[in-house]
Amino acid sequence: MNQIKVEKLLINYKTLEKFKHFKAYGNQELSMLEDLQSNIVENDSESPFYGIYYGNNLVARMSLYKVRAKYDAYFKPAQDYLELWKLEVLPDYRGNGYGRALVEFAKQDQLPIKTNPRINSQGFWEEMDFQQAKYEMERDLGQNPYIWMPAGVKEKEKEN
Amino acid sequence: MNQIKVEKLLINYKTLEKFKHFKAYGNQELSMLEDLQSNIVENDSESPFYGIYYGNNLVARMSLYKVRAKYDAYFKPAQDYLELWKLEVLPDYRGNGYGRALVEFAKQDQLPIKTNPRINSQGFWEEMDFQQAKYEMERDLGQNPYIWMPAGVKEKEKEN
Repeated sequence: MNQIKVEKLLINYKTLEKFKHFKAYGNQELSMLEDLQSNIVENDSESPFYGIYYGNNLVARMSLYKVRAKYDAYFKPAQDYLELWKLEVLPDYRGNGYGRALVEFAKQDQLPIKTNPRINSQGFWEEMDFQQAKYEMERDLGQNPYIWMPAGVKEKEKEN
Repeated sequence: MNQIKVEKLLINYKTLEKFKHFKAYGNQELSMLEDLQSNIVENDSESPFYGIYYGNNLVARMSLYKVRAKYDAYFKPAQDYLELWKLEVLPDYRGNGYGRALVEFAKQDQLPIKTNPRINSQGFWEEMDFQQAKYEMERDLGQNPYIWMPAGVKEKEKEN
């Protein structure tokens, strides 16, 4: 298999245009577009997106954001962790390990990771060594959180 | 059209069995099942779920939870609001107004409502007079929030 390279994506009109090929295009991308158009952010500014190119095509992407320890409601001890979302590989490019490469990239920092998988993608997350977090309604509401923990980190215990 | 009746669902093994027909069956339902099995909750205890029966079949459902004003990051003034999730009508029963009936039920309290629509359901929410909230990454992360506001309530302004 060729080397898969994960790149931090800079926000510009070209990248936002490529984002339109992904199913989960939504508020976040529209907000970035507005910020560019109204000069709230500069062209090529940083974004929480990482992606994989195949030639000139952006074929996989994810968003990654470090949540500060004071907001951590998932891990023990409470600590900085990564929220991962919009992990998506374009249909024609699936089965090549791009999803796995993105998740492995996210794990490099050795911070715990939390995601809210799409329906029917749980199998993938379990292969990636994620586990279902214990659901707490007040915290999770409509989410179905899955978590990954590096050595030494535990899941926070449920509050009753 | 026959009268559509929205009912508060009590949690018991029968209801949890019916939940398995819905696509968004996940952590929340599994956690309810465990709580029943380990007697953490009693049979027929209250739940955040509301549903519509057609004969003996549960054909539509949603979850609804009141978030307290101190956690409100969406509305102005900050106030109690309803988080709505897992709105779903079983495929064979779509097009009968069940989804609309559930949303109208949720609006009866005249509290603002926030939801995180599934991909491709935005059109439905717009018909229900919901609007896309301005995306804020630190708050919304992987969500694509849509909100509904009763008279006198505004969307909170974006913090920069």
